[in-house]
Amino acid sequence: MRPTGKLLAEDARRHHRALMLQRLFSEGPVSRADLARATGLTRVTVSDLVGGLIDDGLIVELGSPAETRVGKPPTLVGIAADARHIVALDLSPDDRMIGTVQDLLGAVKARVELPREGRSGAQAVRLAVSLAAELLRATDRTVLGIGVGSPGIVDGRGVVLDAPNLSWRDVDLAGTLHREFGVPVHVANDANTAVLGEHTFGEAGDGDFLLLRIATGVGAGLVVGGVLVQGHGSAAGEIGHVIVDPGGKPCACGRVGCLETVLAVPRLRERDPAALAQVGEVLGEALAPVIGLLNLHQLVLAGPRDLLDGALRDAVDRTVRERTMAVTTEDFVVRTSPLGDDVVLAGAAVLVLSGELGVS
Amino acid sequence: MRPTGKLLAEDARRHHRALMLQRLFSEGPVSRADLARATGLTRVTVSDLVGGLIDDGLIVELGSPAETRVGKPPTLVGIAADARHIVALDLSPDDRMIGTVQDLLGAVKARVELPREGRSGAQAVRLAVSLAAELLRATDRTVLGIGVGSPGIVDGRGVVLDAPNLSWRDVDLAGTLHREFGVPVHVANDANTAVLGEHTFGEAGDGDFLLLRIATGVGAGLVVGGVLVQGHGSAAGEIGHVIVDPGGKPCACGRVGCLETVLAVPRLRERDPAALAQVGEVLGEALAPVIGLLNLHQLVLAGPRDLLDGALRDAVDRTVRERTMAVTTEDFVVRTSPLGDDVVLAGAAVLVLSGELGVS
Ligand SMILES: [Zn+2]
Ligand SMILES: [Zn+2]
Repeated sequence: MRPTGKLLAEDARRHHRALMLQRLFSEGPVSRADLARATGLTRVTVSDLVGGLIDDGLIVELGSPAETRVGKPPTLVGIAADARHIVALDLSPDDRMIGTVQDLLGAVKARVELPREGRSGAQAVRLAVSLAAELLRATDRTVLGIGVGSPGIVDGRGVVLDAPNLSWRDVDLAGTLHREFGVPVHVANDANTAVLGEHTFGEAGDGDFLLLRIATGVGAGLVVGGVLVQGHGSAAGEIGHVIVDPGGKPCACGRVGCLETVLAVPRLRERDPAALAQVGEVLGEALAPVIGLLNLHQLVLAGPRDLLDGALRDAVDRTVRERTMAVTTEDFVVRTSPLGDDVVLAGAAVLVLSGELGVS
Repeated sequence: MRPTGKLLAEDARRHHRALMLQRLFSEGPVSRADLARATGLTRVTVSDLVGGLIDDGLIVELGSPAETRVGKPPTLVGIAADARHIVALDLSPDDRMIGTVQDLLGAVKARVELPREGRSGAQAVRLAVSLAAELLRATDRTVLGIGVGSPGIVDGRGVVLDAPNLSWRDVDLAGTLHREFGVPVHVANDANTAVLGEHTFGEAGDGDFLLLRIATGVGAGLVVGGVLVQGHGSAAGEIGHVIVDPGGKPCACGRVGCLETVLAVPRLRERDPAALAQVGEVLGEALAPVIGLLNLHQLVLAGPRDLLDGALRDAVDRTVRERTMAVTTEDFVVRTSPLGDDVVLAGAAVLVLSGELGVS
């Protein structure tokens, strides 16, 4: 017989732990009484859960705040940032794979970049494994998990269904890394990962935004009402292979004139500012119906800032405004991510924090 | 002092009434016991609320179902469809204003169409008032309210902020109709109204869909996760004035080549099937980035079916597929609304049902 009652109680316990950790992540150190007020749990439950988290080393007692009222000052507890480390991988740049070791609050402890040198298929999988191995050697802490932002379409189990630029089809990246290293692994599409990074560590605030991830390929993540749009077949964001230039260049997907053939980083590197402005116009024309339809406030360009800031961004901004009603775009903002190209690594860490601790 | 406790209790009572009515609208006649199970309210509360709704005439006892088990058969209760009537107006067609009297279940009891003959501004407001007056004379029932689908941008109080095709700016349509007739008035943009109609009385099911309202103007409503996307400045759906043909014809908004200049009904009426297919291609090109980004399942064309079904719809379908990845569009469907041009009238009735009874 399944011990349903026990399971439910553990479920509730895990949920309450996540609530408290979420509070500590977003607010910084607080007292047990603050935690009780914020979560709606009883003082007894909070003390019990705090005890468990201290035993696990995830949080620490931090002494009392400087200004306290009369009587015994409350003890604050906070995230023990260095208690666990996270390994974050970004497999989406055009010429390399990048990884970091991060603490629980996102601080980068180590960084490794391996040149890709055109590798694809099984060779590219081995490169990702090597990258993870090197990062795991760079930390002496318990590793909470490995988070990966991968190009292509990634399913809920971390299988890369289709990533033309790496010649990957049905590559079980999460399974491979988990078998190799024995730690939890969370994999998502690089654009969706970037959305998490921007949402948690960037400047998007609580508003809706469209993020374009511009790397070897081009993907997008759209947040509406605080939720990442998944799409009917979980393939939302696949804007990179929308045709914008039918008379243009052949694409890795086998067709002609996809957005990637003008906007991918290798293509942008070939261009001068005037040509970057032309790319911005093409992008603005393709996005104007999207911005008009959604009355979107923010478009975030996430990739190399030296290529995206300036002529390209200005041309997108101008073209979208020219092509939509003023009422739609009077508050419209196009900007690059303050995290630059590291937005995927930040998001990869969030994948692990979210998957393992229930916080984001 | 504000009687907060009383207000809260009335609020709860209204909420519970709405829950029960919603159940009766969506499921048809049920017993009091079914209502208690479905709403989670006690039998006593349900009996009390049912009594109130019977006193108000909104529901009736319908006797027992044919097949009942042993013992006293339960009495069913159901919506008294004819207890109240709703006046629905659609001000968006290019050449006329249309209105219906509908019962609470959407059955049309009377229909009036008035030719617009180019009227705009205050004259168009007077035409809408005449239409409502004629419909109110056509019913001897208590009118639950007037629902209006209007072209243009409409704010939450029913003021039409901007409708270039009727030369309306800041027209307080809800206020004018309410002062004239003394019944509740609910006004929304015609495309958003059509979304409600399609959602409640059409074929959209629970999935996400994009509805294009094609009439004198062109607007859109987008449902993601069961919720109508409002946009940053509540101007979502304003796709009609997105420029798709920069070398094209002048638009009522003062610019050149807006989607309306090719897709509005008066423009479509000038064209043969080959030219309608060209319009479909332009529309498909503009929407491909939207469909690809959202991985949208359904595009609903809501307007005159004689113009939209056939060459135009086929060209949209083909162009969107050609311009997006197969994985994005393998389940993609373009269809017209089964409600045809009446989808806005159906939605206008839903505006009233939702606003006055809390059901949709
Ligand atoms: Zn392609
Ligand atoms: Zn226009």
